[in-house]
Amino acid sequence: MALISYVNGRYIRHDLACVHIEDRGFQFADAVYEVIAVQNGRLVDGEEHFARLERSLDELSIAHPMTRAALKAVSTALLQRNRIKYGALYIQVSRGRASRDFVFPSGIHPTLVMTVKRLKPFDAEAVGKGVKVITIPDIRWKRCDIKSVSLIAPAMGKTEAFKRGAFEAWQVDDDGLISEGTSSNAWIVTAEGALLTRPTSHAILSGITRQTVMKLAREEGLALIERAFSVAEAHAAREAFTTSTTAFIRPVVQIDDTMIGEGKPGAFCRKLLALYGQYIARSTSS
Amino acid sequence: MALISYVNGRYIRHDLACVHIEDRGFQFADAVYEVIAVQNGRLVDGEEHFARLERSLDELSIAHPMTRAALKAVSTALLQRNRIKYGALYIQVSRGRASRDFVFPSGIHPTLVMTVKRLKPFDAEAVGKGVKVITIPDIRWKRCDIKSVSLIAPAMGKTEAFKRGAFEAWQVDDDGLISEGTSSNAWIVTAEGALLTRPTSHAILSGITRQTVMKLAREEGLALIERAFSVAEAHAAREAFTTSTTAFIRPVVQIDDTMIGEGKPGAFCRKLLALYGQYIARSTSS
Repeated sequence: MALISYVNGRYIRHDLACVHIEDRGFQFADAVYEVIAVQNGRLVDGEEHFARLERSLDELSIAHPMTRAALKAVSTALLQRNRIKYGALYIQVSRGRASRDFVFPSGIHPTLVMTVKRLKPFDAEAVGKGVKVITIPDIRWKRCDIKSVSLIAPAMGKTEAFKRGAFEAWQVDDDGLISEGTSSNAWIVTAEGALLTRPTSHAILSGITRQTVMKLAREEGLALIERAFSVAEAHAAREAFTTSTTAFIRPVVQIDDTMIGEGKPGAFCRKLLALYGQYIARSTSS
Repeated sequence: MALISYVNGRYIRHDLACVHIEDRGFQFADAVYEVIAVQNGRLVDGEEHFARLERSLDELSIAHPMTRAALKAVSTALLQRNRIKYGALYIQVSRGRASRDFVFPSGIHPTLVMTVKRLKPFDAEAVGKGVKVITIPDIRWKRCDIKSVSLIAPAMGKTEAFKRGAFEAWQVDDDGLISEGTSSNAWIVTAEGALLTRPTSHAILSGITRQTVMKLAREEGLALIERAFSVAEAHAAREAFTTSTTAFIRPVVQIDDTMIGEGKPGAFCRKLLALYGQYIARSTSS
């Protein structure tokens, strides 16, 4: 069965879904997006993703294409039409179509695109084998808190990671501190057992999985500290992992050429994966 | 008569021209572009623009959609079909369509889009009245030498300029030096009569009009110095102007709240405009 996507009010066969060549999402990266995990037919942290989408739109003064309730209704309909029980929902909103001009035009309607894809269910064991990450300079713009489609730098970084046999690239700012992965937030556990992740600012995206993991870690009584850490600290870490909507919590067992901890997922990672599995089961039960 | 655009091998009515929603230009700003002025039915500095397009593609490892000769043939055909004698040609090449993934996919064909628009002929008097520019922080990524469609930051800046009654925003780097305008290169004439513009690097685009103006200035024996200048130097300048493909040489008579020189185009600007007019006439004569 061909996938169905949603474009500006129409459910349309995915391969026929298109936007105008003067859509500002195509010409100016003047668009924002969200990716939401689907488990058991339900959106994981749906409200948080919709809230972040609204914030991204507001930061760029892009009109909301519809109310949050309407967006949720379309999401549900799209998952049902495609019979997606486990996968991901992609939502992109651009400022809309206008004759090419850098200045934000007024009086146009935003473009709303939604697609879905099927993925395997969350499985704490399957995601738990551990991956390699590399570190690369962070060459992105200075508003990474906005989830814009201005993604050429992260795409270059992830491609570099892929070429070097790594799962992800952690980007390093001008001060030598790790900002975040190209599509994930970076975490380490220090030798002293403190769980570190960088505080939110304009330098990183406020990851939804990051927020959830922080909450779970606090509930569990782990020593969570929000502070930026250096590449050297990452190399010396007892454990490391990277979090994102579709990778969930991914244990990192190698950073550049340095093995982390014992080269396999450690106790913190395993504990958080278990807690995250329970969280998903709890929050997506019918 | 409806405008005709070109998309992937087809000449198509502009309002029907579209790209797939999973075109990487739409989802990742994974695309580059050129704007070329058309005067007397001919491309101004066409070879230089095509060469820069090729460089941008190569920097991002995007395949060339066709040879330069073929690209020129399509350009000519598109101008003729639309009967454009004075205007601009817009060329955009994205990496192509692929199932969404940050990693550059292999085996896909680049997307080639070309549009034209009609503009008034170059007129040294008409462009010579002088404009206001504002200065804003440069929040762009660190590869501004690549002419990518990752343009949300410049679009935000130009919108800010527009709101404040200015023609352009000059972006200021972390060292307090002006990098360039949102879609133009910045120039000043110092009190001592030196013509300054920032040297090329990853921080700015190597403007084609910038190159032409440099050549004309050297031929004229003007004291041209390629070095970055500060906001304070700009405010204290005897003259200022900004150069781009479609604005040509635009005298700047106010920077932020500071009047420049005598608040009207100065001798250097008028001289360069005259030389530029001769250059266009010479290089586009049939």
